Amino acid sequence: MFEAAELGRKISKQEFAEQLPALRAELLQSQQALKAKGLSVVVLIAGLDGAGKAEVVNRLNEWLDPRGIDTHTFWQPSDEERERPPWWRYWRVLPSHGRIAVLFGGWYSDLLPRRACGEIKNKTLDRELDRVAAFEHMLAADGILLVKLWFHLSKQDQRKRLKQLEKSSPTHWRLLPRDWEHYKLYAKFVKTAERIIRRTNTGPCPWHLVEAMDDRYRDLTAGQVLLASFQQLLKNHASGPLSPPPVPAPPPTPKSVQRTILDQVDLNGRFSEAAYREALKKLQRKLNRLVWAAHDQRRSTVLLFEGWDAAGKGSAIRRLTEAMDARLYRIIPIAAPTDEEKAHHYLWRFWRHLPRSGWVTIFDRSWYGRVLVERVEGFAREEEWKRAYLEINDFEEQLVEHGMVLLKFWIHISKAEQLRRFKERERVSYKRHKITPEDWRNREKWPAYEAAVNDMVAGTSTEFAPWTLVAGNDKKFARIQILKTVCERLEAAL
Amino acid sequence: MFEAAELGRKISKQEFAEQLPALRAELLQSQQALKAKGLSVVVLIAGLDGAGKAEVVNRLNEWLDPRGIDTHTFWQPSDEERERPPWWRYWRVLPSHGRIAVLFGGWYSDLLPRRACGEIKNKTLDRELDRVAAFEHMLAADGILLVKLWFHLSKQDQRKRLKQLEKSSPTHWRLLPRDWEHYKLYAKFVKTAERIIRRTNTGPCPWHLVEAMDDRYRDLTAGQVLLASFQQLLKNHASGPLSPPPVPAPPPTPKSVQRTILDQVDLNGRFSEAAYREALKKLQRKLNRLVWAAHDQRRSTVLLFEGWDAAGKGSAIRRLTEAMDARLYRIIPIAAPTDEEKAHHYLWRFWRHLPRSGWVTIFDRSWYGRVLVERVEGFAREEEWKRAYLEINDFEEQLVEHGMVLLKFWIHISKAEQLRRFKERERVSYKRHKITPEDWRNREKWPAYEAAVNDMVAGTSTEFAPWTLVAGNDKKFARIQILKTVCERLEAAL
Repeated sequence: MFEAAELGRKISKQEFAEQLPALRAELLQSQQALKAKGLSVVVLIAGLDGAGKAEVVNRLNEWLDPRGIDTHTFWQPSDEERERPPWWRYWRVLPSHGRIAVLFGGWYSDLLPRRACGEIKNKTLDRELDRVAAFEHMLAADGILLVKLWFHLSKQDQRKRLKQLEKSSPTHWRLLPRDWEHYKLYAKFVKTAERIIRRTNTGPCPWHLVEAMDDRYRDLTAGQVLLASFQQLLKNHASGPLSPPPVPAPPPTPKSVQRTILDQVDLNGRFSEAAYREALKKLQRKLNRLVWAAHDQRRSTVLLFEGWDAAGKGSAIRRLTEAMDARLYRIIPIAAPTDEEKAHHYLWRFWRHLPRSGWVTIFDRSWYGRVLVERVEGFAREEEWKRAYLEINDFEEQLVEHGMVLLKFWIHISKAEQLRRFKERERVSYKRHKITPEDWRNREKWPAYEAAVNDMVAGTSTEFAPWTLVAGNDKKFARIQILKTVCERLEAAL
Repeated sequence: MFEAAELGRKISKQEFAEQLPALRAELLQSQQALKAKGLSVVVLIAGLDGAGKAEVVNRLNEWLDPRGIDTHTFWQPSDEERERPPWWRYWRVLPSHGRIAVLFGGWYSDLLPRRACGEIKNKTLDRELDRVAAFEHMLAADGILLVKLWFHLSKQDQRKRLKQLEKSSPTHWRLLPRDWEHYKLYAKFVKTAERIIRRTNTGPCPWHLVEAMDDRYRDLTAGQVLLASFQQLLKNHASGPLSPPPVPAPPPTPKSVQRTILDQVDLNGRFSEAAYREALKKLQRKLNRLVWAAHDQRRSTVLLFEGWDAAGKGSAIRRLTEAMDARLYRIIPIAAPTDEEKAHHYLWRFWRHLPRSGWVTIFDRSWYGRVLVERVEGFAREEEWKRAYLEINDFEEQLVEHGMVLLKFWIHISKAEQLRRFKERERVSYKRHKITPEDWRNREKWPAYEAAVNDMVAGTSTEFAPWTLVAGNDKKFARIQILKTVCERLEAAL
């Protein structure tokens, strides 16, 4: 694979000087155009030790307007990073609309040395690479341009480079002893590199192999690849500034949905007041202990609640929080996104609220908005909500792999029960603020929502993150079911 | 001072049950009203060990809608927190408009035990308390309601409480051995508490002393204080939802400003191309080494740039970044705030971008917008920009105390030179995007800006954070002056 990057290509000082002014002007101009259109770019810098990755990045910052670029390295993770799933640190630096992020290594950082040095096997590597490919595909689908540059050196050249670095005093300190160890494993590094590139060299996110021995050739090539990528993106968006996706006609409301998963929920469960009081007290006491135990064991918990309007999400959440020490949980009510959130992938706003080790986050509505309200109302395009199932499953898998306890509740009520509660809200003065014309409008779309919920459960009730469908016609019954489930899952996890 | 909180006040179970429903209903209602008006609240919970602070907070979360409350404790700071000035962790949890933050201890957390145990002296305590008072005053002036609750116990009661806690198994673990040690120092704790309260019991941010021995009395009183504070705030804002401050007529443009600080800047400095090239190369090489040295020593650096339109801020910044490794700096261009930023105090957006230890942040325009453009254009009310000098000085003092290297540059050019550059921008096609009608409008307000710059330098050029006024008529001269200053300051600091 690397033959084409070992050709000894060079660029003379003169040729470099001739080509540079035009390249810089065009780069700057495209950068301005990208900014104006609100397009984001991620530049991934990877390759062998000694290939001069830092030098390239410095050049790019010099050639472009550095005020629009954020350069990120992934050295030692901070404790706030270690306490979240490994990808948290990548999510937090994704560029907002109109900005360029240059990532050193990024999500490839550890893979090459870890595999080459034998810390992980191909099986683990491949699994990680599948995740990488899925993630990159997701970014691309979201309109983010990903430019992946791989800087290569032949074995002989790498040796030459490391020698040079050793000699030149200002950079000497940067040469870690590790580099020579890696050099000894050159063959393994190259073999692993090939595997990495092969498995992540996808249509929308291709790798660009750059021969790195000659500084001028390397830098100019990197600049040209960047420019060509910018220009291609701009061409794709030639129609004007990036506008929100055109709101398509919402999918036709199914006239009569066949039997759905929701029909399986037995809504007849009831609790007498006395039985409820007793069970509630017992379970809340238990939950209090469990949440503290989870804190002591530094396990974090994510609870999310979805359900029909007036299903009783809020009051169910309160029965949980009553039981927990207020110092240990945070509730994130999901309403309209802020503009910073709108300038990122829709999952970004959930990643940013993931709890640190030992804490609980409760989402009152969640990332499932993508496949529920956004689908039904047509706020997300069909291809967007259709790929959301995969994106969500991968997200949740990462939470669970990190050791988080994740519980997902859909509180179900019958259509008749919803009507009863809406009318009650209209009647009772202090409940009136809870009912809006929008609630009535949503109600008219019941069959469409029913279909969406069915697909949601079918598509995202996984072994590692199953849905709990809660029978909500009796609020007491629902609360006990939820408390019980949370206790059971926490108990099993601790 | 605490006599009034040792009266043995109690509330019977029955009385509590009678009063609670009305209190809860009113609390909820006020919370909704506060949210609707976009008003933020900080509830500070402080007091002696064993007073039941956690229990009160749980009650408040139960009585209010917990979805609008964020509870924060300040246990071990994370490394991301330790690498910023101590107040960073408080700034990051300040509530946005419409939300309530409940802070355990907050900025008082360590003061009481540290002084009572003799770790710090009164002098240090007083200095910290002055900062606290200034900070609280700033929040209040910004429209944030601060409710400060101090929970008190007599010595005898504290002993009783600690005994109870020791016995009751579910809370037992929470009793740290430290608590008994503190109990032995009861007299010192109370004396310190009195000092703390006395010095921070200001008009807009009063303390509420609550007798804490009887749970019901304690919780009900806390709820009542909160309600009364909410209602007072709502009354103050009865005129309608919080609207942006009415834009006042901008201060009259001074016809002819007397001699200002800017007149002292000798704009005649010039550099020949050759001398410039040489000096630039030498200084950039030096700066590269210094920035790496600062990184190795984990010192962070904040550079900020202000100046007339077309003064050459951007190109000066590039001469700096060319010299630095892109992995070590970040540029924050300050344009219109995002809506998350608008929902906080104006300094919040700068706090959030402070670098971690060993990194450099460059602000392209800065917090000085408050006393420059916001003053001149009338975006900030007079009382707002007038108190900004104090707020900024305190902010910068905290950066410097933390060991950050802080440099502030005003790039000065003459009015004639600005005209020349504007015209050049209009003439040269690739510079044309840099000139807008707004630039011309700003130019008309030159005397008003001149007065604002003069006041800015007079009010904020402090011993710990002096301004560097840069002679910018010759760009080369300006760049060398800046590079030289940065190198000198870094050298002195390392």
